[in-house]
Amino acid sequence: MKLEQRYEGKAKRVYATENPREYVVEYKDDATAFNGVKRAQIRGKGEINNAITAHLFPLLEGAGVPTHFIERLSEREQRVRAVEIIPVEVIVRNVAAGSFSKRLGVEEGTELRRPVVEYCYKSDALGDPLINTDTAVALGWASEEDLTRIRELALRVRDFLTPYFAARGIRLIDFKLEFGKTQGGRVVLADEISPDTCRFWDAETNEKLDKDRFRRDLGGVEDAYAEMLRRVTQPT
Amino acid sequence: MKLEQRYEGKAKRVYATENPREYVVEYKDDATAFNGVKRAQIRGKGEINNAITAHLFPLLEGAGVPTHFIERLSEREQRVRAVEIIPVEVIVRNVAAGSFSKRLGVEEGTELRRPVVEYCYKSDALGDPLINTDTAVALGWASEEDLTRIRELALRVRDFLTPYFAARGIRLIDFKLEFGKTQGGRVVLADEISPDTCRFWDAETNEKLDKDRFRRDLGGVEDAYAEMLRRVTQPT
Ligand SMILES: Nc1ncnc2c1ncn2[C@@H]1O[C@H](COP(=O)(O)OP(=O)(O)O)[C@@H](O)[C@H]1O
Ligand SMILES: Nc1ncnc2c1ncn2[C@@H]1O[C@H](COP(=O)(O)OP(=O)(O)O)[C@@H](O)[C@H]1O
Ligand SMILES: [Mg+2]
Ligand SMILES: [Mg+2]
Repeated sequence: MKLEQRYEGKAKRVYATENPREYVVEYKDDATAFNGVKRAQIRGKGEINNAITAHLFPLLEGAGVPTHFIERLSEREQRVRAVEIIPVEVIVRNVAAGSFSKRLGVEEGTELRRPVVEYCYKSDALGDPLINTDTAVALGWASEEDLTRIRELALRVRDFLTPYFAARGIRLIDFKLEFGKTQGGRVVLADEISPDTCRFWDAETNEKLDKDRFRRDLGGVEDAYAEMLRRVTQPT
Repeated sequence: MKLEQRYEGKAKRVYATENPREYVVEYKDDATAFNGVKRAQIRGKGEINNAITAHLFPLLEGAGVPTHFIERLSEREQRVRAVEIIPVEVIVRNVAAGSFSKRLGVEEGTELRRPVVEYCYKSDALGDPLINTDTAVALGWASEEDLTRIRELALRVRDFLTPYFAARGIRLIDFKLEFGKTQGGRVVLADEISPDTCRFWDAETNEKLDKDRFRRDLGGVEDAYAEMLRRVTQPT
């Protein structure tokens, strides 16, 4: 099934398959933070993030968000549509946290009076700098039409996931998405949605159940990931 | 005419007048860079920036951009409409330079395939961080409608000034604008347009004729400002 490796990123490996329109994505336990400066393994993370993404992407399809996801193949692997990743990371924020709080002097946990969509240029070398859509178009990273579609889809993801997690006792603080273009030129949600790429706070206690436990040395990292898998898949 | 001082900024002082709807702005020779870390006097700068702004703002009014400018009063002073400054600085870029080049790894002097409008939160304490319009609305700094109008006016300024300077042998690389709201709620262009707030490169030699001569210790700062006043006011 898996042929040669196409990319190895910080959290996943991407493999060619016999079908040139499909890849296999393998989820690793590797964790990095601060643009690769901090590194470790989080036991069980690969399996959990594979399972969470494989659970959520079909639900998002149902909510009108085309995605790269085809099927989960094994504990660490999923089959996806091969896409050309648009090098613009999309961050959607419901609540101030992380770099946003720091940059703007807004206390973590402050509810935003409307969702904020931010764009970063996906470049490890430059540290994923903040950009805006004018810049992405001016530098040839995406077309105006693609960016309009991306914004629409990103907000649709937010509008689906926010109440989905709320029903499971989780505040969805913010999340990062990647989009790609299929060979047919369609914009689809790619990559993953997991505690690596979202901030999840317990709705009762505000306990962090995401990668910030690793970034900030809060302990209980593995347990937080396992708890998130439980919440995501729990019937309501 | 001038009553009590209302603000003192890095480059200008703002005074109340007998008319509560009007201020007097006094242009200083003080120059700062890197968020106030580097400081000096640029001899003649106050007079030159007052004269350049007083020359350009009426032309912009003629091009459909409402401004705060009423009249030049003296070598360093102008009378303006009192506005509440919207704390969002607007940067318009024709060509990559400065922080944009650095942040995105794009060589200075690279023509952008379309103008880029960037927004920063006007905060000396935070170092004028880059934001986008979602953030400005979410944090209550401006309304969606004001930001739509600001973008329209900023691009109108660019569409007027770019050929205006080109006709005078100057490449307009980028510039920073501030907008304010009058007591009547109208959005108007405020502050100044000068070698402190624009990048001007000689069209033949690419010699810098702006504050970068001060920021980067290139020498000939006073001469560059005087040359820009000459170019701006030169008949074509
Ligand atoms: N469907 C897909 N087709 C092609 N590449 C993809 C797809 N989904 C994700 N990718 C890319 O796979 C790479 C590996 O993922 P990851 O380890 O998370 O990388 P990174 O270190 O960039 O975060 C990333 O560059 C990601 O953009
Ligand atoms: N028409 C106006 N009404 C009120 N304030 C103004 C007006 N035009 C400019 N200002 C403000 O005057 C202050 C002084 O200008 P400046 O010395 O350039 O300040 P800064 O140090 O913020 O760059 C700035 O805060 C600017 O926003
Ligand atoms: Mg990744
Ligand atoms: Mg100023």
